[in-house]
Amino acid sequence: MKVLLAAAADADRWREAFAARLPGATIAVWPDAPPEADYALVWRAPADLFARVRVRRAIFNLGAGVDALLAVPGLPAGVPVLRLEDAGMAEQMAEYAALAVLRAFRDAEHYAREQRAGRWTPLPRRDKRDFRVGLLGAGVLGRAVARTLTVLGFPLAAWSRTPHAIAGAAVYAGIESLRPFLASVRVAVALLPSTPATRGLLDAERLSWLPEGAHLVNAGRGDLVVDADLVAALDSGRIASATLDVYRAEPLPPEHPVWHHPGIVMTPHVSALTRIAESADQVAAKIAAIERGEPVSGVVDRARGY
Amino acid sequence: MKVLLAAAADADRWREAFAARLPGATIAVWPDAPPEADYALVWRAPADLFARVRVRRAIFNLGAGVDALLAVPGLPAGVPVLRLEDAGMAEQMAEYAALAVLRAFRDAEHYAREQRAGRWTPLPRRDKRDFRVGLLGAGVLGRAVARTLTVLGFPLAAWSRTPHAIAGAAVYAGIESLRPFLASVRVAVALLPSTPATRGLLDAERLSWLPEGAHLVNAGRGDLVVDADLVAALDSGRIASATLDVYRAEPLPPEHPVWHHPGIVMTPHVSALTRIAESADQVAAKIAAIERGEPVSGVVDRARGY
Repeated sequence: MKVLLAAAADADRWREAFAARLPGATIAVWPDAPPEADYALVWRAPADLFARVRVRRAIFNLGAGVDALLAVPGLPAGVPVLRLEDAGMAEQMAEYAALAVLRAFRDAEHYAREQRAGRWTPLPRRDKRDFRVGLLGAGVLGRAVARTLTVLGFPLAAWSRTPHAIAGAAVYAGIESLRPFLASVRVAVALLPSTPATRGLLDAERLSWLPEGAHLVNAGRGDLVVDADLVAALDSGRIASATLDVYRAEPLPPEHPVWHHPGIVMTPHVSALTRIAESADQVAAKIAAIERGEPVSGVVDRARGY
Repeated sequence: MKVLLAAAADADRWREAFAARLPGATIAVWPDAPPEADYALVWRAPADLFARVRVRRAIFNLGAGVDALLAVPGLPAGVPVLRLEDAGMAEQMAEYAALAVLRAFRDAEHYAREQRAGRWTPLPRRDKRDFRVGLLGAGVLGRAVARTLTVLGFPLAAWSRTPHAIAGAAVYAGIESLRPFLASVRVAVALLPSTPATRGLLDAERLSWLPEGAHLVNAGRGDLVVDADLVAALDSGRIASATLDVYRAEPLPPEHPVWHHPGIVMTPHVSALTRIAESADQVAAKIAAIERGEPVSGVVDRARGY
């Protein structure tokens, strides 16, 4: 079996992890480019990958979001593309969302400001029943976030394009339900992939559907949100805070206005990092299943984009 | 039945809450001081309360920490003192601890600093197995904190003077086990009451038992920690951060050094606020039980101090 590994970072660690799990395979590491390979394992695929290597059986994306991979020229039409499913990312995303929601609910920005000013200004307890959290996205990550926020006692709603039941969450499905969904939540947590249907989803009009003083968390993809519209909503005070982990360009250019906006808490795309051991376990198990002719989960629907 | 209410704040709301739950009672509100009362319901009791009013059946503290009440002159020896048990505070404490632990585990201070500097500096994922959280205190609050941190996946230890089992936590009991307990945790969360045995517990020597780079959260009582020793441990970098909700003097005087220490996140004693409705429910139910001659929980052991 011939395997091509094209990981943008940690190539040595990925190669070791796959070598241990695919003992019979020959593993070529990009920029080494054999004319053909049975499987390609890629993260931030080089633009000329598919021009140089013919991949025959399957292409594995070493992350959850496949938007970049689907945009690589020459991606072979007849070869399945698979995304990572969870592999330790759901737990991380639940932590990230819990931290952002607790910061908002417990007025962390208020207390940080008052500490800087040297003022003792306790606020009354908020009522959690009035602090509904809305998840945009109802897949593996959304379900993990919902489980954690339920234990923390937050009422929940979840929106997705097609209906998905999530334990403990009111379900909203379809674009026509986006307005009542957004109007009902105090914190919106975006976990959606970047697809033709989600790009620019949160623009000035949709952000205006959130209640006054709502909070936005974007841990999905940067292009879900129209940055200028978000900054305007923060400047006007309509949106109280934004917690951003993903951006249209990454690393975010130094001149971008979100770096120094007082209403924005930024992290550099670390909400849910690919874990090499868990991911290699998953990919190796799926390769074994494909070799046995068995079906596998996580195959990307290219028309939907995820 | 004659009831004396001496609440330092929100006296009108407390009076209404008790009037609705004790329909047969006469409720005097301090500074109105009848010569005697069956029950006293107090928060930050005035120093002359027991000189002016003879309380016959029981004294209820409208909060969890009774250290201030036990220090009031003339507290009658033969009358039981009761503290609030949970009454909505355990849930709040679990949120507070989860927020502080997640901030430490997810490197929130690093990312805040890097955002201010305009630097894109992702850190690798930490291993949760190496991030044990230690609870100082294993009562109602400790158990609630442990439940939430367990769901978030943190390994736990709990220390108390006498052994108390907490689901999911390694148990350390007694002062001789404090050193191995502190040495084993990355975050120490202090939830202890202020008693003769706990005052000054976390001094320079005990803080030095924490591993290099550990975090301290104090949501118990301010006098558990020797402030100057904590500041020295932060200055030397041995302790990475402290999250403080309680202080030796409250409100904290404007000149106190913790206000502006870069390693300290401060809140003004809001980790777990007394909730009037839940608290009045609990106190009224206990008064009814006492009137029926039944035993009640939450009676303070004055020798232990809680």
